[in-house]
Amino acid sequence: MTELRVGLLGLGTIGTGVARILIEQKELISRRLGKQVILVAAADRDLGRDRGLDFTGVRLVDDANDIVTADDIDLVVELIGGYEPARSFVIKALEHGKHVVTANKALIAKHGEELFPLAAAKGLQIGFEAAVGGGIPCLKALREGLAANAIASVYGILNGTCNFILTKMENEGASYANVLKEAQKLGYAEADPSFDVEGIDTAQKLAILAAMAFGSKIKFDDVYTEGVSNITANDIESAFEMGYRIKLLGIAKPHGDQIEMRVHPTLVSLTSQMAQVSDSYNAVQITGDFVENTMYVGRGAGERPTASAVVADVMDICSGFPDGIAHLAPPMGFVESSRKDIKTMAMADAECEYYIRLMVKDQPGVIAAVTSILADHRISLEALTQKERDTGHNVAIIMLTHTTAEGNMQAAISRIIGLEAVEEDVLILRKESAVA
Amino acid sequence: MTELRVGLLGLGTIGTGVARILIEQKELISRRLGKQVILVAAADRDLGRDRGLDFTGVRLVDDANDIVTADDIDLVVELIGGYEPARSFVIKALEHGKHVVTANKALIAKHGEELFPLAAAKGLQIGFEAAVGGGIPCLKALREGLAANAIASVYGILNGTCNFILTKMENEGASYANVLKEAQKLGYAEADPSFDVEGIDTAQKLAILAAMAFGSKIKFDDVYTEGVSNITANDIESAFEMGYRIKLLGIAKPHGDQIEMRVHPTLVSLTSQMAQVSDSYNAVQITGDFVENTMYVGRGAGERPTASAVVADVMDICSGFPDGIAHLAPPMGFVESSRKDIKTMAMADAECEYYIRLMVKDQPGVIAAVTSILADHRISLEALTQKERDTGHNVAIIMLTHTTAEGNMQAAISRIIGLEAVEEDVLILRKESAVA
Repeated sequence: MTELRVGLLGLGTIGTGVARILIEQKELISRRLGKQVILVAAADRDLGRDRGLDFTGVRLVDDANDIVTADDIDLVVELIGGYEPARSFVIKALEHGKHVVTANKALIAKHGEELFPLAAAKGLQIGFEAAVGGGIPCLKALREGLAANAIASVYGILNGTCNFILTKMENEGASYANVLKEAQKLGYAEADPSFDVEGIDTAQKLAILAAMAFGSKIKFDDVYTEGVSNITANDIESAFEMGYRIKLLGIAKPHGDQIEMRVHPTLVSLTSQMAQVSDSYNAVQITGDFVENTMYVGRGAGERPTASAVVADVMDICSGFPDGIAHLAPPMGFVESSRKDIKTMAMADAECEYYIRLMVKDQPGVIAAVTSILADHRISLEALTQKERDTGHNVAIIMLTHTTAEGNMQAAISRIIGLEAVEEDVLILRKESAVA
Repeated sequence: MTELRVGLLGLGTIGTGVARILIEQKELISRRLGKQVILVAAADRDLGRDRGLDFTGVRLVDDANDIVTADDIDLVVELIGGYEPARSFVIKALEHGKHVVTANKALIAKHGEELFPLAAAKGLQIGFEAAVGGGIPCLKALREGLAANAIASVYGILNGTCNFILTKMENEGASYANVLKEAQKLGYAEADPSFDVEGIDTAQKLAILAAMAFGSKIKFDDVYTEGVSNITANDIESAFEMGYRIKLLGIAKPHGDQIEMRVHPTLVSLTSQMAQVSDSYNAVQITGDFVENTMYVGRGAGERPTASAVVADVMDICSGFPDGIAHLAPPMGFVESSRKDIKTMAMADAECEYYIRLMVKDQPGVIAAVTSILADHRISLEALTQKERDTGHNVAIIMLTHTTAEGNMQAAISRIIGLEAVEEDVLILRKESAVA
């Protein structure tokens, strides 16, 4: 029986999960493929820790170099994470003729355009299903399942930490700071949570999705990015009263010869599928010109779901092994030579509906002043609510607007902030009616 | 550039959609594959009708035999539907060395076990993504995306007609008969709707999903099947009041050396993802031992979504063309030789929670009699509601039970029906708490 020999870089949470599948599901994998996937070696700096697995027959080493250069390894699974040394090890593995599978969205988002041509030139595959949406096979769906479609939009809840925090804030009426502390205690958020809560992780995943959807280069640095740290329990409640739930979404759409990419807290209808995606679940809505709306939901992180996606990539590569990869769909869904350098649309040109929260002095004429500025900018209101005054004699005004350009809204907001009666930071959220 | 030459059997709704994609998305397909997919010929008995497409360069014939035997065709797309002559044409195409892609669930459910070995022996592929879930790439997800998992369960809303009817009955409080008539007028239901509304279509799709999930042979005849024609608007309302929505689900689970397969109206929690899947949308929830719950939602039928799935299969086959299919995952997700003949579990052994609706005479002691029978069978109640009497002096009693075996429930019900005070047909629905 043909054997694909796998070397593993990193025996942390996900690496342990991958090793577990390759060891425990060996027979299932063979029944599916008619071939064998063998875990030959694994590298980790901490080999002393008990991982509850029987590593008999697996070479355990503490230097990743021993794996990426080994003669008896056909495919390297990179689960170190981060930019370096992950990038160097992946390059070295490719140079030594090994296929690569990774769960590293940072690596793909930042260095994908260096790695894909290198792999293609060598007839090698790079799999990264686990980098977006955890266990959900959403990249495969986009790359292969919807391959007949010109993609019209991608919307995704792509970060489990943020979704956990927003769900908890809604369910318990708790503050962002308190929920973040609890998430950190439970291991759902890092000690330095900024990568997750400021939307950077979501932006990396969105950049990958957008490039796959539209046949463009990955442009992570171009993604407009806001996180969830400014959301209050009151905002969540106000949105709910108006029929919406707040989710941190990654959004990508094509606009002629430009691509729109943005990450920000977004109001979605309470009756949408997306609104039901709670806790650490992820979801991706992909709309194509033929298939219409499709949606993919599942665990966005965790040892076992992420390992499921990693091993799916390994099995894909094994399907045609050892005959090279001419038979596989290209990693980014388009052959390298046809992937275009498409410009990112300026955020000022994005057309959105808006949720605006102002704290104003409780005095006559404030609403008239605010709404006349909006009218000057031809921004029309869908709803306006004035909340009861708080202890400081300020009043919250919540407005929902119809569609306008971001640049126009920002111009209006800077005038509104200039009003003497507007007391505190203005919060602007965006609303997406097209989310199903 | 390598060319894959396609012949199309049937230019009805879906066939026209497939031709449309192959003609209109030609450049997109080439950018993705680095190869060309060429529509060489199409067969239909009615060639006179204008399909709004430019068929320049496409050979239009009225005899499918001209396609399945043609020397200049590599892949045949079968969109005739039904058992015969579709089966004969598919066999003939395989015998003439052509790959086959079909949207025909009836054909795969009934004759798959004849067709797959034939194709495998010839090194040919059979694609049938469009046969289940319309445009949703759910078979690819199950076969490849979740390949590392032992599948724990499959739940699906697999028939758009039934889902449209149930959604409409709930939204309008309308009767089954009236909504069916409207669905027929809109083209959502056939003149003879029994195939859809009696659950047969769902059972065919479930049989395919179950065989793919568990590596077993397709056993369509073994699927326990109930349709939606006994559901009343009152049942939908009663379920809603208790926190549930009624959906026609296909359900498959492994039980040791047996497989459970059943299709019936099912109560799912109003807060579940599945409950939000409305109108003609389909959804499949697949749970694996590593990935946990995943869910796939999209259009279950229609020209464009179904054509999207058909062409995805064509493109998959084109990926490795002309090098044969050794590189593709096997059609049923397991190599032919490893697919087992697994016994179907008897419906009497299924463990369910139940919704029971009785119409009883409004007289003392009825509830005591009914509940004491249930107690005899060790069936415990989660909820019991007595509805106001109707004009005929009958009273509706709605009960939700905890889990018990189907056989035990049927024994209890036959005793309850024997009670003098129980007036009319008893409706038994099942409830699934594991639906996410």
